[in-house]
Amino acid sequence: MKTKQIVKQARDFAAPFRVAHGRKFRLRDFDPGDTLELKSEDKPRAKEALAIGVQALAELQDKLYAQDRWAVLLIFQAMDAAGKDSAIKHVMSGVNPQGCEVTSFKSPSSEELDHDYLWRCMKVLPNRGHIGIFNRSYYEETLVVRVHPELLAKQKLPAPLVTKSIWKERFRDIRGFERYLGHNGILVRKFFLHVSKKEQKCRFLERINNSEKNWKFSSDDVKERGHWDAYMEAYEEMIRNTATPEAPWHVVPADNKWFTRVVVAAAIIEALASLDLHYPRVGPRQLKELAAAKRALLARK
Amino acid sequence: MKTKQIVKQARDFAAPFRVAHGRKFRLRDFDPGDTLELKSEDKPRAKEALAIGVQALAELQDKLYAQDRWAVLLIFQAMDAAGKDSAIKHVMSGVNPQGCEVTSFKSPSSEELDHDYLWRCMKVLPNRGHIGIFNRSYYEETLVVRVHPELLAKQKLPAPLVTKSIWKERFRDIRGFERYLGHNGILVRKFFLHVSKKEQKCRFLERINNSEKNWKFSSDDVKERGHWDAYMEAYEEMIRNTATPEAPWHVVPADNKWFTRVVVAAAIIEALASLDLHYPRVGPRQLKELAAAKRALLARK
Repeated sequence: MKTKQIVKQARDFAAPFRVAHGRKFRLRDFDPGDTLELKSEDKPRAKEALAIGVQALAELQDKLYAQDRWAVLLIFQAMDAAGKDSAIKHVMSGVNPQGCEVTSFKSPSSEELDHDYLWRCMKVLPNRGHIGIFNRSYYEETLVVRVHPELLAKQKLPAPLVTKSIWKERFRDIRGFERYLGHNGILVRKFFLHVSKKEQKCRFLERINNSEKNWKFSSDDVKERGHWDAYMEAYEEMIRNTATPEAPWHVVPADNKWFTRVVVAAAIIEALASLDLHYPRVGPRQLKELAAAKRALLARK
Repeated sequence: MKTKQIVKQARDFAAPFRVAHGRKFRLRDFDPGDTLELKSEDKPRAKEALAIGVQALAELQDKLYAQDRWAVLLIFQAMDAAGKDSAIKHVMSGVNPQGCEVTSFKSPSSEELDHDYLWRCMKVLPNRGHIGIFNRSYYEETLVVRVHPELLAKQKLPAPLVTKSIWKERFRDIRGFERYLGHNGILVRKFFLHVSKKEQKCRFLERINNSEKNWKFSSDDVKERGHWDAYMEAYEEMIRNTATPEAPWHVVPADNKWFTRVVVAAAIIEALASLDLHYPRVGPRQLKELAAAKRALLARK
C-alpha cells in the first residue's frame, strides 16, 4: 500500500474519536466498547492493519528525525488498566528508540513538589526531531489532584492562590502552554483511553486470578475505583476545557485492546503526516562543500 | 527456537569479539572485514538471525522492565560512518521505547563544560528496569579530547591537574565509575564498531555521490579522517585500559553492516541473559492483599 493511501485511511479511521473543540463535549456520547463496524472476528485484520501502521510510523519518524525541526508530544491519560502501557508498547515498538522517549509520571517527589507543576514536564519535552511520549502528564493536576483535594494541599501553593477558580485557571494555563509548544514546533496530540467500569473490573480480576499478572496489581487501584464517578466528571471537564484544534484529544474506546491500538496508531500517523516532513535538502553552498570534500577524499589514502 | 538455545548461540557468536581483559589488547588482531565463516551470500540468513535476535531481545527487555531491579547501559563508540546510528536503529527497533532511552552525546555545551565530564552522563543513566544507550559517551574524553589537546584546554580544569598522567587517571577513574555502576545494579557493555579506513572512504563517497544521503555528510568528518592513526592509537589505549570482566568491550567488525548488527544483537542478548531476570514474584503478604482486593471488587459494582 502506498504511504498516501495509508495516511488517508489513518486519518479517516481516527476522525470519529478526535475532539478538537471541547466546548460541547460529553463523555456519554463516546462508547468504550465501540469498534466501529469491526467485529471480534476482524481481529486478525486489525492486527495486520496495525503492523502496516507501525511500519508507516517508523518511516515517518525517520524523516522527522533526519529533518530535525519539528517535535511531537503524545500524551496518554486513562484510568488504571485501560491499557496505556500496552498501547504504547504495541504502537511504538518498531520506531527507532534513538528518536523516541517515553516518560512515565508517578506521584511527584518532594523535589518536584517544591516547583510549579509544569517544571518536571518541561525538563523532558522532546528534542527537535523526536517523539516524546508522556505516560500520564501535567493533566493529573486536573484529575487525581482534583479528586483528592488533600494532594493539592501538599503542593505548597501560597494560600491566596488556592481559590474556587483554580481548575479553570489550570485549564487556561495548560491551553496557553500547549499553544506555546505549538509556536515552538512541538506538535501536541492527546489520548484518553476510555475504558468502562465493567471492563476495568474484569481486568483487575484477571490480574488477581492469573498468578503471572499478580505483580501488575496494586490494592490502591481498587481504592481509586471507588472514585469512578468523580474521575469521569474530571475527565469530561478536562476534555471540555483543553480540546483545541492545535492540541486535540482523542477519546479512544478502550474495552477492546486490539481496537484501541489501531486507533492510537492511526491518530499518530495522521499527526506526523500533517507536518511537512522531508529529508533535509542540501543548498548550493553545501553542494560546493561536498565537491571540495570529495576532491580531498580522493586525493589521499 | 527456544530462548535457551538462542541465548547459547548468541553467547557463542559474540565471544570472539569480546575483550574482558584489556592488558594485552592489540587493535591489529581484529579485522574490520571479519564475518567469521559467513559470506555475503549468507546475508539473508544473517537478516533472519537478526530478526530472531530482536524478538528475543524484546522478551528479555520485558522481564527487565517488569522486574525493575537491574539496569543495562550500552555504550557505542566508533569513527564516523562506522554505523553506530544504524546499528542502534536495527538492533533496538522492536524493544518497547518505554524501557529504553538513547542519548547522543555531542560536543559539550558551555553549561556542560562548567562541570566534571561525567556530570552530563550521570544525569541520563538508565532507570532501574531500563536499557540506556549512549551514542558516544564519556569515552570521548580519552578519544577526541586526546587527539585534539585544544579541547582539553577548554575544559577549564585547574592547571595543576593537567599533567602527563591525565589519560591514565581518566582510565582509572572510568574503571572506578563503571565498577560503581556494577555495584548499583547497572550492567555495562561497551561496543567499538571497528571500521577500516578504506571502508570509511567508500561510505563518505556514497554520502557525497548519493543526493539522498548528502545531509548525512559533514566536511568536518573528512578533517577528522586526517587524524586516523592518532584515533586508532587512542582507541587501542582506551580498550587496553578499560576492558574489564564487569564492563567488557566488544570490538565489532564494522565493514559489513549486516554482520555488525548480528554481533551487536548477540552481545546484548548475552548481557541481558546473564542477569537473573524474571517477572516479579508475589509474596504471602501480597497474596493476602490480593484476596482482600478481590472480595472488595466482587462486593461492589
